[in-house]
Amino acid sequence: MRPGEADPGEADPGEHVGRALAAECARYAAMGWMRGTSGNLSVVVGRDPLRLAVTVSGKDKGELTADDVVLVDAAGRTDDPVRVPSAEAALHGRIAAVSGAGAVVHVHALAPVVAAERSPGGVGLRDLEMLKGFGRHAHDDLVVVPVVPNSQDMRVLGDAFEAGFRPDVPALLVARHGVYVWGDDLLQARHRLECLEWLLRFEVGIS
Amino acid sequence: MRPGEADPGEADPGEHVGRALAAECARYAAMGWMRGTSGNLSVVVGRDPLRLAVTVSGKDKGELTADDVVLVDAAGRTDDPVRVPSAEAALHGRIAAVSGAGAVVHVHALAPVVAAERSPGGVGLRDLEMLKGFGRHAHDDLVVVPVVPNSQDMRVLGDAFEAGFRPDVPALLVARHGVYVWGDDLLQARHRLECLEWLLRFEVGIS
Amino acid sequence: MRPGEADPGEADPGEHVGRALAAECARYAAMGWMRGTSGNLSVVVGRDPLRLAVTVSGKDKGELTADDVVLVDAAGRTDDPVRVPSAEAALHGRIAAVSGAGAVVHVHALAPVVAAERSPGGVGLRDLEMLKGFGRHAHDDLVVVPVVPNSQDMRVLGDAFEAGFRPDVPALLVARHGVYVWGDDLLQARHRLECLEWLLRFEVGIS
Amino acid sequence: MRPGEADPGEADPGEHVGRALAAECARYAAMGWMRGTSGNLSVVVGRDPLRLAVTVSGKDKGELTADDVVLVDAAGRTDDPVRVPSAEAALHGRIAAVSGAGAVVHVHALAPVVAAERSPGGVGLRDLEMLKGFGRHAHDDLVVVPVVPNSQDMRVLGDAFEAGFRPDVPALLVARHGVYVWGDDLLQARHRLECLEWLLRFEVGIS
Repeated sequence: MRPGEADPGEADPGEHVGRALAAECARYAAMGWMRGTSGNLSVVVGRDPLRLAVTVSGKDKGELTADDVVLVDAAGRTDDPVRVPSAEAALHGRIAAVSGAGAVVHVHALAPVVAAERSPGGVGLRDLEMLKGFGRHAHDDLVVVPVVPNSQDMRVLGDAFEAGFRPDVPALLVARHGVYVWGDDLLQARHRLECLEWLLRFEVGIS
Repeated sequence: MRPGEADPGEADPGEHVGRALAAECARYAAMGWMRGTSGNLSVVVGRDPLRLAVTVSGKDKGELTADDVVLVDAAGRTDDPVRVPSAEAALHGRIAAVSGAGAVVHVHALAPVVAAERSPGGVGLRDLEMLKGFGRHAHDDLVVVPVVPNSQDMRVLGDAFEAGFRPDVPALLVARHGVYVWGDDLLQARHRLECLEWLLRFEVGIS
Repeated sequence: MRPGEADPGEADPGEHVGRALAAECARYAAMGWMRGTSGNLSVVVGRDPLRLAVTVSGKDKGELTADDVVLVDAAGRTDDPVRVPSAEAALHGRIAAVSGAGAVVHVHALAPVVAAERSPGGVGLRDLEMLKGFGRHAHDDLVVVPVVPNSQDMRVLGDAFEAGFRPDVPALLVARHGVYVWGDDLLQARHRLECLEWLLRFEVGIS
Repeated sequence: MRPGEADPGEADPGEHVGRALAAECARYAAMGWMRGTSGNLSVVVGRDPLRLAVTVSGKDKGELTADDVVLVDAAGRTDDPVRVPSAEAALHGRIAAVSGAGAVVHVHALAPVVAAERSPGGVGLRDLEMLKGFGRHAHDDLVVVPVVPNSQDMRVLGDAFEAGFRPDVPALLVARHGVYVWGDDLLQARHRLECLEWLLRFEVGIS
């Protein structure tokens, strides 16, 4: 089983999902992509109805434990009596519902935010080998990563995401905020995120 | 108890404050924010009268032990027969007294100094999600981080700090020197510092 | 025996080659040069006929084990029933055949790709001490690192490599893709790669 | 005893000097300042006549052991039957003789080389707090770090160093090559180097 992979029929995400989410957070925190308590990750643990395990709000993302995860529904609501899900859990739910992704990662890496600032209409990438790691072709395949304005209303963000959604672009840039990337599981989401971040550093560096 | 949290009525800051300060220094040193022996951190250990535990002067900040902390009063003076407090202890005291902060961190990260150099009248930040990690709003909330000229006289620095102090801006940029950030405890100060440093890297990167 | 050194007459590259390749990958991954599953390394394990041990395709390069290596011939083909060699194994084979190298490393460091973008006709380096670590002289010795267009056809890439090959330039820049460096063994290839990456960061930084 | 401190009357530098030099090299290698096999460090182990323990040539500086050190005289010559001193040992000797330093560190950090490229007549630094960590004043004290042209002849480099030597500037920039910094011992040299590198990154970043 790959990191964070959960049995979709399982009632409780269980400790292994929590451990996987905490480990991924620690990795991203060490890369400087989850400064402060920023960013949040989720794994889909049920499809019908949609349920996600998402990292809790307000904690240092380099110091999470397997217990710092909370179950939410598609709208990001929980009936957990103690743990508070990330405020952005509803957007995770929306992305998982629309894209069919099994894992969604949201980090505050710098290059995506600088790239979005320079290209508010969407960041075009083309003819770059690293696009293969993003699930696309290295040649003759224009990828436009959508940019949406920042908002604190997850329905507004979700509507903007859905309006620009294309099944072949597993990422969303939120202007002056950060980046969302998704995949079948945490490992695929990680690889797509790492490749996209590289691509955006390249774009920022040469422009 | 969160890292570095001290009982305000405690006579001796005790080893746990020293351990917490040494661990935070090691973290910042690894990030390149305490090069040489630069920077200093403090925790308030008494309010009436004000007393702080502050890192000692002149040591490698990546190699402090729990013992490399010295108790000072509001003016940065100690009666410790051996340990020498940071020369900037008096500014820590002034910040703690004026702001009511429980912890003050001062590091020599590069982006704050570059940002202050470009904006000597104060660095304006607005409409950025990371401002939430600094205790402010992500929208329609202009944050101006004050910049004061560098000085070796802590009264001069303290007066400049106090003249520009606003309770809702928990940071001070000292031109051609470094940044001070404060919070209720070391963890909140860390999160605010990490978010501010990200924001200033963003500002420097797009300008 | 230096890391990754193999007895050329040995039938099976054995676990020590796998361990050495995994360790080198982990090192480069930690440096940010193998983001996602990008990059691949190889060691020559036989000369007549040419055979290489090359890292497998599609895995996280920071998490390889000694088993994630596959034997290929000069054209990058394997008869391994399970493991899939990197798609670029054939270029490794071509480089090893033409240059006589014992190890070939291919990473997606950023500076080489930015340098190639700026100098598509080849990147000239001269009068820099670090050229000694690349096997050249620090003075009066112009080194032109060839740049070839990216391709998914390893014969096309291989022909372009061979057309520009000079025995005294142990590196190849693939535009909008990454860099290949080779040497007698993994350690020499590492040192040449590290020096070349430094040189290209210098070039990019001052231009 | 501080790291790398040796009894000047001791016949053999002993294992503790080797361990200290190896540990400092590993630290600088991890910071990216000793890529490939570049850079070299030394500690004075005798004054009359001058003798230094210097790191050996050609090894990966992140993987040295306590044994990878060789004793040399003021001209960088050794009678060690096995170990080869760094080619730059003679410049270490010259610097130690002229400056009276107890330790000399030479690394290939990038910012010093970029700064030297932009200011071939010497890099001026003034009114920066970090100058205190370099042994100077934070205000009204112009520090000019000399730049000398690169050479493979250590007498030429040594003469150029001596011609520009001032007792209050414990550093030398070698154009298109790297930086030398010295101090009473390895720890002071480290702190001065870290502060100078910060200062030069600041200069490069704002110019």
